Amino acid sequence: MDTEENMDFKYIIEDIYKTISSQENSGQVANYIPELSLVDPSKFGVCLRTIENQKYGVGDWEHKFSIQSISKVLSLSLAYKILGDDIWDRVGVEPSGNPFNSLIQLETDNGIPRNPFINAGAMVICDMLISHCKNAKVEFLEFIHRISFNDQINYSEAVVQSELSVGYRNIALCNFIKSFGNIDNDPSEVLDFYFHICSIEMSCSELSQCFLFLTDNNFKDSENKKVLTTSQAKRINAIMLTCGFYDESGEFSFKVGLPGKSGVGGGIIALHPNKYTIAVWSPRLNERFNSNRGMQFLESFTTETKLSIF
Amino acid sequence: MDTEENMDFKYIIEDIYKTISSQENSGQVANYIPELSLVDPSKFGVCLRTIENQKYGVGDWEHKFSIQSISKVLSLSLAYKILGDDIWDRVGVEPSGNPFNSLIQLETDNGIPRNPFINAGAMVICDMLISHCKNAKVEFLEFIHRISFNDQINYSEAVVQSELSVGYRNIALCNFIKSFGNIDNDPSEVLDFYFHICSIEMSCSELSQCFLFLTDNNFKDSENKKVLTTSQAKRINAIMLTCGFYDESGEFSFKVGLPGKSGVGGGIIALHPNKYTIAVWSPRLNERFNSNRGMQFLESFTTETKLSIF
Amino acid sequence: MDTEENMDFKYIIEDIYKTISSQENSGQVANYIPELSLVDPSKFGVCLRTIENQKYGVGDWEHKFSIQSISKVLSLSLAYKILGDDIWDRVGVEPSGNPFNSLIQLETDNGIPRNPFINAGAMVICDMLISHCKNAKVEFLEFIHRISFNDQINYSEAVVQSELSVGYRNIALCNFIKSFGNIDNDPSEVLDFYFHICSIEMSCSELSQCFLFLTDNNFKDSENKKVLTTSQAKRINAIMLTCGFYDESGEFSFKVGLPGKSGVGGGIIALHPNKYTIAVWSPRLNERFNSNRGMQFLESFTTETKLSIF
Amino acid sequence: MDTEENMDFKYIIEDIYKTISSQENSGQVANYIPELSLVDPSKFGVCLRTIENQKYGVGDWEHKFSIQSISKVLSLSLAYKILGDDIWDRVGVEPSGNPFNSLIQLETDNGIPRNPFINAGAMVICDMLISHCKNAKVEFLEFIHRISFNDQINYSEAVVQSELSVGYRNIALCNFIKSFGNIDNDPSEVLDFYFHICSIEMSCSELSQCFLFLTDNNFKDSENKKVLTTSQAKRINAIMLTCGFYDESGEFSFKVGLPGKSGVGGGIIALHPNKYTIAVWSPRLNERFNSNRGMQFLESFTTETKLSIF
Repeated sequence: MDTEENMDFKYIIEDIYKTISSQENSGQVANYIPELSLVDPSKFGVCLRTIENQKYGVGDWEHKFSIQSISKVLSLSLAYKILGDDIWDRVGVEPSGNPFNSLIQLETDNGIPRNPFINAGAMVICDMLISHCKNAKVEFLEFIHRISFNDQINYSEAVVQSELSVGYRNIALCNFIKSFGNIDNDPSEVLDFYFHICSIEMSCSELSQCFLFLTDNNFKDSENKKVLTTSQAKRINAIMLTCGFYDESGEFSFKVGLPGKSGVGGGIIALHPNKYTIAVWSPRLNERFNSNRGMQFLESFTTETKLSIF
Repeated sequence: MDTEENMDFKYIIEDIYKTISSQENSGQVANYIPELSLVDPSKFGVCLRTIENQKYGVGDWEHKFSIQSISKVLSLSLAYKILGDDIWDRVGVEPSGNPFNSLIQLETDNGIPRNPFINAGAMVICDMLISHCKNAKVEFLEFIHRISFNDQINYSEAVVQSELSVGYRNIALCNFIKSFGNIDNDPSEVLDFYFHICSIEMSCSELSQCFLFLTDNNFKDSENKKVLTTSQAKRINAIMLTCGFYDESGEFSFKVGLPGKSGVGGGIIALHPNKYTIAVWSPRLNERFNSNRGMQFLESFTTETKLSIF
Repeated sequence: MDTEENMDFKYIIEDIYKTISSQENSGQVANYIPELSLVDPSKFGVCLRTIENQKYGVGDWEHKFSIQSISKVLSLSLAYKILGDDIWDRVGVEPSGNPFNSLIQLETDNGIPRNPFINAGAMVICDMLISHCKNAKVEFLEFIHRISFNDQINYSEAVVQSELSVGYRNIALCNFIKSFGNIDNDPSEVLDFYFHICSIEMSCSELSQCFLFLTDNNFKDSENKKVLTTSQAKRINAIMLTCGFYDESGEFSFKVGLPGKSGVGGGIIALHPNKYTIAVWSPRLNERFNSNRGMQFLESFTTETKLSIF
Repeated sequence: MDTEENMDFKYIIEDIYKTISSQENSGQVANYIPELSLVDPSKFGVCLRTIENQKYGVGDWEHKFSIQSISKVLSLSLAYKILGDDIWDRVGVEPSGNPFNSLIQLETDNGIPRNPFINAGAMVICDMLISHCKNAKVEFLEFIHRISFNDQINYSEAVVQSELSVGYRNIALCNFIKSFGNIDNDPSEVLDFYFHICSIEMSCSELSQCFLFLTDNNFKDSENKKVLTTSQAKRINAIMLTCGFYDESGEFSFKVGLPGKSGVGGGIIALHPNKYTIAVWSPRLNERFNSNRGMQFLESFTTETKLSIF
C-alpha cells in the first residue's frame, strides 16, 4: 500500500470512531463470567496495523482486555504448525449454524466438532496441544510472545478462576466430547488449559501486532522463522471468514467482508490479507455475543475504504 | 492482470485437467431427477475468463448442461437489484450447517430460511420476483441474456417436467414456508418458477461469461448498464463464500478460497474478485452433492496459481 | 359394574360439570382452520356410556362438533382390522416428544412417523386405506356407521374445504413423507382423504357410543361381528395412552390415567377398559391444543371416582 | 385374585421360561460400564409376587444383579413422598422420544428434563434429595429397607467406581443441567449420589417385593406406614407406562401393557395394579438397552394371562 492509502486509514478510523462514540452505546457486557462483568462498558479502542508495521490507534487502544475466543485462532495456529493436516481428523471446518456452546450438533456428529472456533472444537485443539507439549500452558504463551514480539502478554488467573466457578456448560461440553472418545486427556486438564487460553489479555495494539503473521506472507517471528506456510495461513483465514463469529459469521462476511474473530470480552480482530490487521474493542455485546460497536466500526470501515476481500 | 499471468492460467488449467482426467472418475451422477441421470458422466469441461474477457477453455467447455442451483445466485442478484436490502427481511445470510433441502431449521427459525442458496431461501427469492414481475419467467431469462450478452440461454422444459414428477420434498418445503407466512404467492406457482430457474442450461463458456458481473466492478450489461452496485456485488460474493456449497461451504472456502456456487448438475462457478471467473463441469458428485472433479480441479487451481482471496 | 357405581357416575359427572361451568372458560378456540373458529366457545358437553350401554349426558352432549384428530383412532382401527400387524412396518408406536405437526423427527427417522396419532402417522394410515379400499371415503364412513349403530354420522365438506384452503403444513408433511417413499398414492389424494377423516362430526353421545368397541371385549358391531381382536383393541388403547395427546400425553396419563384421544375441535374421548367410555367437549384449547375444560373434567372425574387403569 | 388364577401364574411362568430358555440368547451385555460387562450373560430369572404376597420364582430369581435405572422409580418415590407435587416444577412427565442420555432436548427445554426416568431427570431428583436429606445416601437406603422389609439391600461400591471411571456423558449431563440452574448442589456430589443409586443390587425376588408398594393400595412399610398416597402411586405407575423404557416405552406399553421400568443391568420390573409385581432379569440387551429376554418374557406373559391394564 502506498503512503496516501495509509494516510486515508488514519482519517477514516478517526472519523468513524468519532461518529460511533457519539451514538448510544447499547448492548450488554458479558455477565456470565463474573470477572468479565467488571469491565468498564464505555471502553472503546481501535488499532490498525499495516504489513509495513505502520499503526493507527484511537481511543482505548493501549488498554488490555480479555481476548477470550480470539485466542482460539492462536491455539489453532500452534496446533496446525505442529501437527499439520492431521488436526482435521478430529475437528471440521464447517460453519455450525448454531450458538457457540451448543451441544446438539456434537450428538448428531458423534463428537467431531464442526470447526475449531466453537468451544467444542477449541477444546479438542487444546487436547491435541496437551498431548504434544511438555507444558502446553508455557509453550502456548511462548508461541504468542514469539509471534507478537512481546513477552508482556499473559494469562489472567482471576479470569481463569472466575470461569471455573461458573463454567458448567463448558465442563459439560468437554466431558461430552470425551464420552465420544475425541478427548484423549483428562477433561479437567483440558478445561484448565482451555480456560487459560481464553483468559489471555491484550490491548488492541498488541492484538493487531499478534495477528500480522496471518496477513503477511513474508512474516517472520522473533526467532526469524516463518510461523505457518502460506497455504496454512490462507486456510486459517478462510475458517475465520466462515466460522469466526459464531452464528453471525455469515452476517460479518456479508457486512464487513474480512476474515475475523470475536471474543465475549468485546474484542474483534479482522484482517485484510497482504494489507493490514485491525483490532477493535468495546465490551457491550449484541445478542449473538459479538461486540456491537466493533461490528459497527468494521462495517463502516470496509464500506468507507472500499477494501474487502470480495 | 498482466499477459504473463494469463498465459500461466492456460498452462495450469491444461495441466490440472490432464492430471485429473487420468484419474478414476468416482462419485454418482445426480439421480433423483430422472432427466439429470441421463447425462454422460464422463463429461468434463473448464472455462476461465478474465475481466479483460480473455478466455481459456478445455475439454467439454462448450457443451451445455443443467446449471441447477448455480441459478440461485442469478435469481438472488435480480431480486437484490430490484428490491434492495428489503430482501433480507425474509431470508438470512448465515450458513445453515445442514443439507440443502433440510426442513429442520425452518421449523426452529419460523420459516425464515438461513440463506438464499438453500432451496428454502431460493424459493422465497422466487416468491419475491413473482410478486414484483409481470412475468417472472420471461424477465428472469431477459436478465440472464443481458448480463451474458447471449440470448441462446434457456430453460429446459424436460428438466422442469422431470423435477415436477419427483419433487415431493421441494413441494413440502414450499408449503412449509407458506405455512409460516413467508411465501405470498400460490406454492404451485412458486415451485413452477423455482423449477424453471433450476432448469437453465449453459456451457462452461457461457457460465463464466454470465458471472463476470460479480467479478468486475466496471461491468456493464448488454444495455450498457451496471447490474449491481459494487457493495451489492461484494455481498453476493460473501454469501457465495459462506453458503455456496451447502454443508461443504467451509470445506470449499478452506481448500479453494474463492466465492463460488455449485449445482447438482455437476457444475461449479467460482470467481476471484477483480481477476476472473472460472466454470468447471463434471457430473459425478461427492456425498454432499458437489462435483467431485470440480472441487478437485479448483483446489488444485488455487494451489497452483497461489491466488485465493485469503 | 353394579348399579350403585353407575348411579355414582351420574352425580359425580353433574357435580364436576357444575363446578367447572362456574369457573372462567379460558383458552383459545382453534383458529387456524377458519371453519372451526366459528364454533360457540361456551359449548360444554359430557357423555359417559358404560359397557352395559347406560349413558349419562350433561350440557351440550347431543350437539355435534368436529371431532378432528379423534378420528385417527378410528382410521387406525380400520387399517389394523384389515391389514393386521403389517401396518407397523410403516408407522411406529412411540410417543414423539414433539408437537403434532412437527417435521423434524420425520427427517431423522427417514419418513417413518413415530406413531399413528401425529399427523404424519395418520396420513400413512390413510395411504394404506386408499391402497386397500375401492373407495376409502365411503368405506371409512360405513365402518363408523357399523361400530356406532348410527348412519347419521358424516363428513363436513365445509370443514374439508376450510382445511384445504389453509392446510399448507399438512401438504408439506404429506409430500415430505412421500419424498421418503412412505406414501404410495398421490399426496393430493391422501390429503383429501385425511382432511375428510378429520372433518367427521359427532356429538358426545355419538362419540361415546362409537368408542365402545375398544372398551368392551364382547362388543359386536351392527352386523353382529367383532371389530378387532381383544389383543388389537388393547394395543390401540396402549397407543392412546402413550400418544393420544400430542406432547401432553404423559401429562394426561399422569393426571387422568386413562387411554384417550383429543381433537382440536375441543373434543376428548377417554375410556376405562371393561367399564366405560367418556366423551367431553369444550372448544377452548390449552397451549398444547387440548381442550382445557376437557382435561380438567377428566382429571376431576378419575380423581373423584378413584377409577383409573393404574 | 383367587387361588386358581395364582396357580395359573405358576404354570404360565414356567412354560414361558422354558420356551425362551430354549431359544438363542441374543443381544449384548451392557459394556460401557466395565463392572457390568463381567456379568454372566446366561443368567435368567423371574419372580412374580401377588399383593397377597404369594411368590413364584424360576431360574436365577434369587441371584442379585445391578438394578441400575430401575432405582430411578425408587428415588422418585422418595422425593415425591417428601416434597409432594413441588417436584414437578423441576422435571416433567412427558415421554422424551429420545435416547436416555440425550442432551439435545435439555437444550431446547432450558434444562427441565422431560421426565424423572431419563438420566437428566433422575439427576434432578437426586439433587432434590440431597438438598432435603441430612445424608441422602443413607436415607435412600433406609427407605428401600423399609419398603422391602429387607435390610440386605445395598450399594455396590465396585459399580460406583466403575461408572465414575467412564461416566463422562453423565458428568456432561449433570453440568449441563447445572448450567441452566436446575441443579442446586455441586455436580460432583449429585453424580456421586446418582451413581450410588444406580449401583443398588437386588435379586428378582427382592425387586418384586420392593415394588409392592406401587401395586397394593393398602400397602404398609416395615414401620406400618403408607408409603405414598393412592393418587401418588397411580401417578408413578402412569409415568412408568409412558416413560419407563427410554425410547421403547411405547413399544412396551403396546406389547406388554403394564407399567414397568428397565435397567441396563438387564432387569425389568413390571406391575399390574391391585394384582402383582413381576421382576425379570437377563443381561443381554436389545439395541435400545432393554433386556431382550425380559421384554420377550413379559410380552408372552401378558398375552398368555390376558391380563394387561388395557
